[in-house]
Amino acid sequence: MSAWLLPDHFADLLPAQAGHIERMRTAMLGVARTYGYELVIPPLLEHLESLQTASHGELDLQTFKLVDQLSGRTLGLRADTTPQVARIDAHLLGRPGVSRLCYCGPTVHTRPQSPQSSREPLQLGAEIYGEAALDADVEILHLACDCLHSAGIGDIGIDLAHARIVTAVLEDVPPRDAQRLHEALAAKDRSAILQLGAGLPASTLDDLLVLIGLYGDESVLAQARQSLHPRPAVERALGDLERLAGRVRGVRLTFDLADMRGYDYYTGPCFALYAPRTSEALVRGGRYDDIGAAFGRNRPAAGFSVDLKALLPLLPPPLPARAILAPWDADPDLEWVIATLRGKGETVIRTQPMQDMHGEHATPVVQPVFHCDRALVRRAGAWCLADIDPSHTPPHPHSAGSA
Amino acid sequence: MSAWLLPDHFADLLPAQAGHIERMRTAMLGVARTYGYELVIPPLLEHLESLQTASHGELDLQTFKLVDQLSGRTLGLRADTTPQVARIDAHLLGRPGVSRLCYCGPTVHTRPQSPQSSREPLQLGAEIYGEAALDADVEILHLACDCLHSAGIGDIGIDLAHARIVTAVLEDVPPRDAQRLHEALAAKDRSAILQLGAGLPASTLDDLLVLIGLYGDESVLAQARQSLHPRPAVERALGDLERLAGRVRGVRLTFDLADMRGYDYYTGPCFALYAPRTSEALVRGGRYDDIGAAFGRNRPAAGFSVDLKALLPLLPPPLPARAILAPWDADPDLEWVIATLRGKGETVIRTQPMQDMHGEHATPVVQPVFHCDRALVRRAGAWCLADIDPSHTPPHPHSAGSA
Repeated sequence: MSAWLLPDHFADLLPAQAGHIERMRTAMLGVARTYGYELVIPPLLEHLESLQTASHGELDLQTFKLVDQLSGRTLGLRADTTPQVARIDAHLLGRPGVSRLCYCGPTVHTRPQSPQSSREPLQLGAEIYGEAALDADVEILHLACDCLHSAGIGDIGIDLAHARIVTAVLEDVPPRDAQRLHEALAAKDRSAILQLGAGLPASTLDDLLVLIGLYGDESVLAQARQSLHPRPAVERALGDLERLAGRVRGVRLTFDLADMRGYDYYTGPCFALYAPRTSEALVRGGRYDDIGAAFGRNRPAAGFSVDLKALLPLLPPPLPARAILAPWDADPDLEWVIATLRGKGETVIRTQPMQDMHGEHATPVVQPVFHCDRALVRRAGAWCLADIDPSHTPPHPHSAGSA
Repeated sequence: MSAWLLPDHFADLLPAQAGHIERMRTAMLGVARTYGYELVIPPLLEHLESLQTASHGELDLQTFKLVDQLSGRTLGLRADTTPQVARIDAHLLGRPGVSRLCYCGPTVHTRPQSPQSSREPLQLGAEIYGEAALDADVEILHLACDCLHSAGIGDIGIDLAHARIVTAVLEDVPPRDAQRLHEALAAKDRSAILQLGAGLPASTLDDLLVLIGLYGDESVLAQARQSLHPRPAVERALGDLERLAGRVRGVRLTFDLADMRGYDYYTGPCFALYAPRTSEALVRGGRYDDIGAAFGRNRPAAGFSVDLKALLPLLPPPLPARAILAPWDADPDLEWVIATLRGKGETVIRTQPMQDMHGEHATPVVQPVFHCDRALVRRAGAWCLADIDPSHTPPHPHSAGSA
């Protein structure tokens, strides 16, 4: 009898958590709508090659594969929604000008991304296509912050990076070595860089060693300008970051110019949002201009995504919602009163007649997300709302019409 | 370049459709909340044996299988959510008394259930556990109808059936023959019944031939009482249906006592809801008391489910939502005005300055779900809302504060 055991890193969300998720989902999609982002819902399964257009190996390893009985082809269970949204922008909408799209749905990973994380992140995100100007980056960053705020998460810290800085420094390094150097940079591992970079030009090695120190507050940008060898791409990237930083206010802003973990397909400014006392980024976003290339529409793109499940530990336990108990009685008058109360948004929970209707039991219906503080009772032939008194005195009736 | 082709029977939902889905989802979960149903979110993947507890072969064939890299075990991609909710009731909540649970999420089928249907139904449903009385069946039926009403689908027809009638008649028939007779009954195929039933007792064969005629309005129940051989289980089932029919008003009510397609794990009254001019049921529901057995908690249960995607063809094209255009200008005053408008629920869409801000183009931003009928423009140093005049005359400014 172990049919109730779930695979590791999969979990049920029970009512209190699921309620949080639903509220966040509604709030964030509502915020995205006020920015003009339109909802799309791509499928969970696609042909494997459609899902892997971003062509980074990590995504391939993260993707569950299965066989389509109808076609015999290999399908993938999406591990990331962004390539799908790029496909929609490229082929289904094909609009001239700017497109703003948002989405919210499950993704599935073959392995957890961190020891605590779910293998089924509930990914919500927004993406803007067709706008190369930094205004789009600013909009995406503002929208990401507003989404977290709408979930009740405040005091957000923003960590800014730029995909073009490390790639410019590593421009002439063969891909395999570049990958290792990326890891050493992310780990700020000076000795690994010295070892891996032994055969590199002095200017490259110098810059790598400078990069691992380029994290902290905004002074990092001036320090980068001073210490890195001059390269046009790095100049432009530092300018982007400076202008982006000037457009965000009232948040803790930090920079890390060496750590590109989590930004696999990014091509410009990138950001990660943190809550106080959390070590994992809650949101990642930025610019990934090449994302639509596999679908024949290689145009500017920026966006962000957030795993709603990862936000749950940051939220307070929800307060139970008020509810009304009503007997299961076929009286049409009662049915009418209940329908009216529900139409006004009240929760009316039916229960067997006489059971717990007179305050004789403190918890008549065991549904922790609801607190039944009133009951519909019959008084002189009419159905009335009566308070359920937790001190077990008889309930005090008042007219249901006044509810 | 075919990376944008989707597997058959999978589709993207584009903004107009996705907006409908999101509105239905929110409305229906809201209705379920007013009935006291608590949201749960089970995982997409589970160990195969957990998903197949309802033990009917059809569900097994519908379930995509994949291998868990962490455990080496076979996982299933859920084809139905009800067994998962039964597991949650049995093990995670384990509450005494009545539990009311609802859910909304994708399911995936290896093959489409009908030539037009999606292989990724978006299943929304509600279930009540722990209540054996017919009141629970009535509540579920009312809730199902109210959910369709909340989506704007009216003039619903209800088709009632009862799982115990056919099973009582086929009580002594070996399972394999019973399965074939089920199919012949569903097809109302008299000659197949005569052939398959040749070796059965006369009373069984008589009843099978009577059953295929037992469809139509409420007179079917009296006809069943008169024509079927007396069996206590059939008597009780007809009584259930009579009482259930007495509790639904203002709908077209029909009965079909022979057709049990789509009710694989049902054990009591079942219902299907239809819209006018649709041949497929929109909602199926009823009683399935044995559903929790595999999880060690075999208690009464009733529920319904609906595929939100299947409702899309019944909905009118959505009207575009009003929106406001605003230039991408870093002026803090403008940022403040925009944040205020968005806080009031207005959609403000940013665009490059001077582009289409003065009514010179009729469709400045190509986003069909939004209709930009106003723009934020600077007048004498202040940001004002101006109507975008489709006849290309200059916009008329009025204060942004009055929006």
